[in-house]
Amino acid sequence: MSQANDYVLGIDIGGTFSKFGFVDRQGHCPHEMSIPTHADEPFSHFLVRLVQAVEDLRAKMPALNLRGIGIGAPNANYYTGRIEKPANLSWGDTDVVALVKKHYDLPIVITNDANAAAIGEMKFGVAQQMKDFLVITLGTGLGSGFVANGEVIYGADGFAGELGHIIVDPNGRMHGNGRRGALEAYVSATGLKRTVFHLLAELPDDSELRDYSFNQLDGAMITEAAHRGDPIALATFEYTGRILGLKLADTVAHTSPEAIIFFGGPTKAGDLLLEPIKRHLEEYLFPIYRNKVKLLISGLEGRNAAVLGASALIWNELDKGERI
Amino acid sequence: MSQANDYVLGIDIGGTFSKFGFVDRQGHCPHEMSIPTHADEPFSHFLVRLVQAVEDLRAKMPALNLRGIGIGAPNANYYTGRIEKPANLSWGDTDVVALVKKHYDLPIVITNDANAAAIGEMKFGVAQQMKDFLVITLGTGLGSGFVANGEVIYGADGFAGELGHIIVDPNGRMHGNGRRGALEAYVSATGLKRTVFHLLAELPDDSELRDYSFNQLDGAMITEAAHRGDPIALATFEYTGRILGLKLADTVAHTSPEAIIFFGGPTKAGDLLLEPIKRHLEEYLFPIYRNKVKLLISGLEGRNAAVLGASALIWNELDKGERI
Repeated sequence: MSQANDYVLGIDIGGTFSKFGFVDRQGHCPHEMSIPTHADEPFSHFLVRLVQAVEDLRAKMPALNLRGIGIGAPNANYYTGRIEKPANLSWGDTDVVALVKKHYDLPIVITNDANAAAIGEMKFGVAQQMKDFLVITLGTGLGSGFVANGEVIYGADGFAGELGHIIVDPNGRMHGNGRRGALEAYVSATGLKRTVFHLLAELPDDSELRDYSFNQLDGAMITEAAHRGDPIALATFEYTGRILGLKLADTVAHTSPEAIIFFGGPTKAGDLLLEPIKRHLEEYLFPIYRNKVKLLISGLEGRNAAVLGASALIWNELDKGERI
Repeated sequence: MSQANDYVLGIDIGGTFSKFGFVDRQGHCPHEMSIPTHADEPFSHFLVRLVQAVEDLRAKMPALNLRGIGIGAPNANYYTGRIEKPANLSWGDTDVVALVKKHYDLPIVITNDANAAAIGEMKFGVAQQMKDFLVITLGTGLGSGFVANGEVIYGADGFAGELGHIIVDPNGRMHGNGRRGALEAYVSATGLKRTVFHLLAELPDDSELRDYSFNQLDGAMITEAAHRGDPIALATFEYTGRILGLKLADTVAHTSPEAIIFFGGPTKAGDLLLEPIKRHLEEYLFPIYRNKVKLLISGLEGRNAAVLGASALIWNELDKGERI
């Protein structure tokens, strides 16, 4: 079979939906699909439905030569092949790679979604010429994936790159797990909402955001209000940029990246988000690092980014020629 | 010539003294020497004196087969081979590797002292089985060297790993370069003294440290006072451990190291220093990282550590079989 028909299967397991698609070496994905995860049911049920859907999709590509499978999932460990204590899935510790391998005797690798996004940027996105960078994924929480010397940093235990849990202020905002002041309590879709409510309390300014309950408010509404010049919305992006700029100055002093790449819903705010981050980052950076680090928006946005990231993970392994 | 006579030259350039020695593949260093750096004179003068001293030492080892040269120096850049804007040397930007190569046409590499210490621990010290760890060097300032996937993280510009300049508090202690709140203003030999004086102001306790001026006080005196149960000295180590534990919790969330290895004078305080760091680190860590990270004292202390680190740097390159 010709190399032109070489594809991998990229799977992104999410708390609500799981997406997958066949992706070639250039990042083309002619077909992708989505199924509900039903995370309250056992993993074995999910896997049966997933395999059925994959085979349905595969039937559309009869000449396909499937080379391997890459999986992005919350709390997935590259070293063990397992999902470990996922917050939004009822599965508990699950040996995902071993269970998938019973259906597909192929090279299979798994990692978390932020690491998959980082490899996706390196293979198919804005980091194609880079060896040292990080990706920050913004959504309900804040995730990150680091690349140094052209390799993802998994760390000793496979859980490197949890920037959402670095500490802004040890006496700061309470977070889900009882820890105070974690970055994702400030910088994430939820963090932005918390900052709006903090500033509605602190500042006297009129704001259209005074008409919404916490549960009504979402990130798009904050962005739109900021575009209309709403002072609380603008102050929210300034506050967020100061905190993220301060903490990213520390991050740069760790790994000195060429670029920091932002991915996810809040990046739709564009310069509203990036300009204050950049300004405060430069202010807090140790001088040797100033005016070097690029802040970029993901090159995968608008494409099937999560599936591309998962597929890049396995293409990366196949390209390294490693046995899996 | 037999491999038994294979040696490299390890050179550690310091602000006051520069040390060097011939080191074999097992880390044995039969002869080492030290010359004054005279950092106020031009680099060319230093180099003439250095080469003369090296040749004097080499005369004692007539069968020596010199394989390469490793150099550790402040603000040294692995990528460019240069020392760039060193704080304690008057040399300005200096292409050290190119200038040394005029005397020795051999593989030559340079990096900063903390990165050299990290490679030294990996080759000859307590990190010989590790692929993910960091070294923290404590002295007048605080330096760090990171290893991930078995490779030093140099970053995009060669200046990764400046943990001394991460920010504890953006409104905190003023530091040399006009930035506020940098870690090394708290955690270093100088930082310990500053904390003693802060606590002498804040606390009413009797203390033998009330008898000394700032210029009289040194780290050994603080350690000795703490061993005698002096409340200000003990509070100083507690304060230092809380700050370093807090910031190292962030570091673990970046690279998830197997161990954090401490190097330098203040480590002589042993558990006085390590116990509070460990306790606060575990408190501030995101739960998935708890009870995993080892805190260790350097395995090179008491040996000619800086020279071993510099020699490990070049042995590491020779072992990789890379052309330099």
